[in-house]
Amino acid sequence: MKYKKHVFICNNQKVAPKKSCGEAHGNELVDAFKAALAERGLLKEMRAQRTGCLDACAFGPALVVYPEGTYYGNVQLSDVAEIVDSHLVNNQPVERLVLNV
Amino acid sequence: MKYKKHVFICNNQKVAPKKSCGEAHGNELVDAFKAALAERGLLKEMRAQRTGCLDACAFGPALVVYPEGTYYGNVQLSDVAEIVDSHLVNNQPVERLVLNV
Repeated sequence: MKYKKHVFICNNQKVAPKKSCGEAHGNELVDAFKAALAERGLLKEMRAQRTGCLDACAFGPALVVYPEGTYYGNVQLSDVAEIVDSHLVNNQPVERLVLNV
Repeated sequence: MKYKKHVFICNNQKVAPKKSCGEAHGNELVDAFKAALAERGLLKEMRAQRTGCLDACAFGPALVVYPEGTYYGNVQLSDVAEIVDSHLVNNQPVERLVLNV
């Protein structure tokens, strides 16, 4: 396995009024995760990157963490540090944001 | 786990002469995987979608299959059916295309 944790963050932009994770918000989340991993010296063992629709649009902004396949919804920039420190580093998912999909 | 198999296909386009998986080729691969899954009635249990750079640019076009985290390189449209039937359905990776990254 190339990465201990691999985070895929939706940046899909649908046409309003359809709900979507959104290119702007998705890309901001990607940047925030990359910065958080870099700050912690984790870029060789973990990766965060953009992806297309994760089929959780109603619960977006959405992301998924592999290899465990944990889906998160309604993720805000202010949640990034907690997801990194609790889940990616310490394997404790942030339950209040986990989607049961 | 929402999906038994979740395939992320790079469609990143770098500026030439840098080697990259390429938006055109990546999107064609995404479409081909989606079509192959649909033909086999697998869309509820498996998903294929675009993603950004997988950090395997030199070996592209690249993709990764989760939850096992198997990286593939130099994937052509003609390889899609084999990857779906052998790996996604029967859990036998297509070794000639697997990357040891």
